[in-house]
Amino acid sequence: MDNTTIIAAVSIVTAGLTTGIGSMMPAIGEGRAVSTALSSIAQQPDAASTITRTLFVGLAMIESTAIYCFVLSMILIFANPFWNQFIVN
Amino acid sequence: MDNTTIIAAVSIVTAGLTTGIGSMMPAIGEGRAVSTALSSIAQQPDAASTITRTLFVGLAMIESTAIYCFVLSMILIFANPFWNQFIVN
Amino acid sequence: MDNTTIIAAVSIVTAGLTTGIGSMMPAIGEGRAVSTALSSIAQQPDAASTITRTLFVGLAMIESTAIYCFVLSMILIFANPFWNQFIVN
Amino acid sequence: MDNTTIIAAVSIVTAGLTTGIGSMMPAIGEGRAVSTALSSIAQQPDAASTITRTLFVGLAMIESTAIYCFVLSMILIFANPFWNQFIVN
Amino acid sequence: MDNTTIIAAVSIVTAGLTTGIGSMMPAIGEGRAVSTALSSIAQQPDAASTITRTLFVGLAMIESTAIYCFVLSMILIFANPFWNQFIVN
Amino acid sequence: MDNTTIIAAVSIVTAGLTTGIGSMMPAIGEGRAVSTALSSIAQQPDAASTITRTLFVGLAMIESTAIYCFVLSMILIFANPFWNQFIVN
Amino acid sequence: MDNTTIIAAVSIVTAGLTTGIGSMMPAIGEGRAVSTALSSIAQQPDAASTITRTLFVGLAMIESTAIYCFVLSMILIFANPFWNQFIVN
Amino acid sequence: MDNTTIIAAVSIVTAGLTTGIGSMMPAIGEGRAVSTALSSIAQQPDAASTITRTLFVGLAMIESTAIYCFVLSMILIFANPFWNQFIVN
Amino acid sequence: MDNTTIIAAVSIVTAGLTTGIGSMMPAIGEGRAVSTALSSIAQQPDAASTITRTLFVGLAMIESTAIYCFVLSMILIFANPFWNQFIVN
Amino acid sequence: MDNTTIIAAVSIVTAGLTTGIGSMMPAIGEGRAVSTALSSIAQQPDAASTITRTLFVGLAMIESTAIYCFVLSMILIFANPFWNQFIVN
Amino acid sequence: MDNTTIIAAVSIVTAGLTTGIGSMMPAIGEGRAVSTALSSIAQQPDAASTITRTLFVGLAMIESTAIYCFVLSMILIFANPFWNQFIVN
Amino acid sequence: MDNTTIIAAVSIVTAGLTTGIGSMMPAIGEGRAVSTALSSIAQQPDAASTITRTLFVGLAMIESTAIYCFVLSMILIFANPFWNQFIVN
Amino acid sequence: MDNTTIIAAVSIVTAGLTTGIGSMMPAIGEGRAVSTALSSIAQQPDAASTITRTLFVGLAMIESTAIYCFVLSMILIFANPFWNQFIVN
Amino acid sequence: MDNTTIIAAVSIVTAGLTTGIGSMMPAIGEGRAVSTALSSIAQQPDAASTITRTLFVGLAMIESTAIYCFVLSMILIFANPFWNQFIVN
Repeated sequence: MDNTTIIAAVSIVTAGLTTGIGSMMPAIGEGRAVSTALSSIAQQPDAASTITRTLFVGLAMIESTAIYCFVLSMILIFANPFWNQFIVN
Repeated sequence: MDNTTIIAAVSIVTAGLTTGIGSMMPAIGEGRAVSTALSSIAQQPDAASTITRTLFVGLAMIESTAIYCFVLSMILIFANPFWNQFIVN
Repeated sequence: MDNTTIIAAVSIVTAGLTTGIGSMMPAIGEGRAVSTALSSIAQQPDAASTITRTLFVGLAMIESTAIYCFVLSMILIFANPFWNQFIVN
Repeated sequence: MDNTTIIAAVSIVTAGLTTGIGSMMPAIGEGRAVSTALSSIAQQPDAASTITRTLFVGLAMIESTAIYCFVLSMILIFANPFWNQFIVN
Repeated sequence: MDNTTIIAAVSIVTAGLTTGIGSMMPAIGEGRAVSTALSSIAQQPDAASTITRTLFVGLAMIESTAIYCFVLSMILIFANPFWNQFIVN
Repeated sequence: MDNTTIIAAVSIVTAGLTTGIGSMMPAIGEGRAVSTALSSIAQQPDAASTITRTLFVGLAMIESTAIYCFVLSMILIFANPFWNQFIVN
Repeated sequence: MDNTTIIAAVSIVTAGLTTGIGSMMPAIGEGRAVSTALSSIAQQPDAASTITRTLFVGLAMIESTAIYCFVLSMILIFANPFWNQFIVN
Repeated sequence: MDNTTIIAAVSIVTAGLTTGIGSMMPAIGEGRAVSTALSSIAQQPDAASTITRTLFVGLAMIESTAIYCFVLSMILIFANPFWNQFIVN
Repeated sequence: MDNTTIIAAVSIVTAGLTTGIGSMMPAIGEGRAVSTALSSIAQQPDAASTITRTLFVGLAMIESTAIYCFVLSMILIFANPFWNQFIVN
Repeated sequence: MDNTTIIAAVSIVTAGLTTGIGSMMPAIGEGRAVSTALSSIAQQPDAASTITRTLFVGLAMIESTAIYCFVLSMILIFANPFWNQFIVN
Repeated sequence: MDNTTIIAAVSIVTAGLTTGIGSMMPAIGEGRAVSTALSSIAQQPDAASTITRTLFVGLAMIESTAIYCFVLSMILIFANPFWNQFIVN
Repeated sequence: MDNTTIIAAVSIVTAGLTTGIGSMMPAIGEGRAVSTALSSIAQQPDAASTITRTLFVGLAMIESTAIYCFVLSMILIFANPFWNQFIVN
Repeated sequence: MDNTTIIAAVSIVTAGLTTGIGSMMPAIGEGRAVSTALSSIAQQPDAASTITRTLFVGLAMIESTAIYCFVLSMILIFANPFWNQFIVN
Repeated sequence: MDNTTIIAAVSIVTAGLTTGIGSMMPAIGEGRAVSTALSSIAQQPDAASTITRTLFVGLAMIESTAIYCFVLSMILIFANPFWNQFIVN
């Protein structure tokens, strides 16, 4: 295993695991938020617009943590500074 | 094991695990959202259209985290930049 | 172990684990959705058609994550690009 | 260990684990669905036919994830393309 | 360790683990189903026949996942195609 | 370690673990079923005979998964086809 | 490590673990059954005899899974067929 | 490490772990049973004698699983047949 | 590492782990029993003497499992038959 | 593996895992906060502005822990002092 | 690593882990007992003296399991019979 | 691997894991605190100012544990005394 | 690695882990106790002095298990008898 | 790896893990305490001062366990007696 192979293999594994692990809990959190939104609308249909608006802000916040992971994986695959360093040498 | 073999093996394992792990929690989250939607419709049938619409937006958000993982796996299998680099060399 | 053996072994293990892990949580999510559907029908029999329709849409969404995993496994077994590369060489 | 031995051993282990892991959660999901069906029938005996029909559709959906795993195991044992490749050579 | 020893050892371990793991959750699922059936009968004795019939169908579905694992183990012990291949050679 | 030693050691470990793991969850499932049966009898003493009969059928179903594991262990210890093969040779 | 040492060591470890693991869950299951029996008696003292009788049948069923493990351990320690085979040779 | 050392070390570890693991869950089960007994007595002081009697039978059943483990550990330390075999030789 | 060192090291580790693991769950079980006793006394102060007496019997039963582990550890440290055997030789 | 390769590989893995692990729980925490906000608005629509304001402050606090992890990962990838040290030498 | 080093290292690790693990659950158990005591006092202030007395007896019982572990650690550090044996030799 | 490489690699991994692990639970704790604050405001809008003030003090306390971890990571990366020692030599 | 290095490394790791692990559960236990104290004061403000007094006694008991671990760590770092033995030699 | 490198690496890892692990549960405990305080204030605004005062004492007790870990980490990094010993030599 020469050096570029190691860097490539490590980058691939890390990119996959980061997205895989980082996507788990946002899905749970969003599921909980959506779930409560639905039961709240059923309980108080008049407040549906306020609830929906707050829900979307909250989903955006939760989704942001999944996006951090996805962005990091994309950086590791397509803009990896260590890889560029080794390719150049 | 030469270098291309290592990259190929690592890509296969990572692609599989990323999709496998990343599909677990969205399924739970969607199950919870759908579950609450059903009980909310049963409780307040008049709000069924609002509930269904909010549900679909929420499911799309939750599904997106599973899709991040699937997209990453597809990239690793069919458009892997590291693999292309090694094949070219 | 020559290279084709490694690729074959890794593909087999990954295909199995991906489907095995990826089938766990959709089953739970669907079980929860079906479970709530049944109690909702018992609570509000008049809304049975709306509930059933929403249930089927939801089950399709949840099942989709299991199908991602199954599709990935089938790709790894029957249309593995890395394997084809090694067989050709 | 020659190559065919490795492929055979890996196929056996993967087939077993895939079915073993993949059968766990469908059993839980079905148990939950059946459980709710029974209490729903007890609560609303008049809706028994609708409940039973929805239950069977749901059980079929849940069972499908277990069947994906079983099918994959059968493919690995009786129709393994990698194994055929090595036997032929 | 010659090749037949490896195949035999792997088959034994896989057969045991598959049945061991695969029997865990069906037992839980059936316990939950039986448990709800009993409390439903106590709550609505008039629906006992419907409940019992639905229970048996559900138990058969849940038991089927355990049987997949047991069948797979029996195949690995008594009708293992890989083993036959090695014995013949 | 010659070959018969490996087969013997693997058979012992597998037999033990299969019974050990496979006995865990049936005990939980039966505990839950018995537990509900008792509270159901206390709640509706008149249905005691129906409850008891359903309980025994359910316990037999749950116990069956533990028996699968025990039977498999006995096969591995006293009627192991791989062991017989090696002893004969 | 000669062969008899391996078989002896493996038998000791397996016997211990099988009983250790296999005794965990029956204790939980019995605790739950006894617990419900006590609260049921407190709730409906008139049905104490029926409850107690059903409890003892249930405890016997649950205890049976622990006894499977204990019997297997005793077989491995005092009537191990593999050990006898090696001692005779 | 000669053979008697291996057998002795394995026996010590197994004896400790068996008792350690096997004592965990009976303590939980007994705690639950005692706990329910106390609240049942507080709820129905007139049935205290029946409750106490049933409690002691139940505790004896639960304790029996812990005693299986302790007995097995004592056998491994003070009456180990494998050890005696090696000492004699 | 000569033989007496191995036996001493194994005995120390086993003694520590057995007591450490074996002390965990009795503490939980006793905490639950004491907890219920206190709320039962608050609910029914007239039955305080019966409750306290039953509590002490129950605590003694639960504590016994912790004492099994402690006794085993003491045996391994101060009256280890294997150690004595090696010291004598 | 020369030294720069080790530092690069370790930095990649650490950056990925830190973001992956550190993004899990904030998503859960935010999901819980959003969820309660929605049900609180449904319960007391008049306090929606106060609730929303408090929610956003709280989400910012929770998000901050995810951002610590993301910042640390960015430092490790783009401003790693150890890497700079090794590159300079 | 000579023999005294092994014994010293093993004793240090075991002493630390035994106290560390063994202190976890007593803290939980005591927390639960104290917690119930406080709510019981709030519910029935007249029985405060009985509750407090029973609480202290219970805390002493629970603390005893933590003390078993601490005593064992102190024995391993300051009065280790195996260590003394090796020092003397 | 020379010594400075080891220290650098260990520092990177430790810094990442410390922040990653240490950020998990504060997020949960803050989520719980914010969640209760919101439902408390909805329940008692008049006490909103007291609740908000107490909430912020509590969040600061909880955040402090996450900050301990972040500070430690920064020390390990930018002001590591061991690293300075090795660089100087 | 000479002997003093091994003892020092083992002491450092053990001291850290003992305090780290041993501080987890007391924090949970104290959190639960404080939590119940607050809700009890809110429910019965007149008993605040009794509750507070009992709370402090309980917190002291729970804190004691954390202090055992901290004391043990301090002994291992600053008054380690094994270390002193090796330094003297 | 010479000896000072080992001590430095072990100290860094231990310091990080101790703070990381030890900060988890205090955050949960404080979150629970703050959470109950808020709902108690909402329930009984008149007792807000007593609740707040008790809350701060409790938070200080819980925070103390996190501080034990942080102090230990600081000792290991900046005042490590083993390190000083090795540096001096």
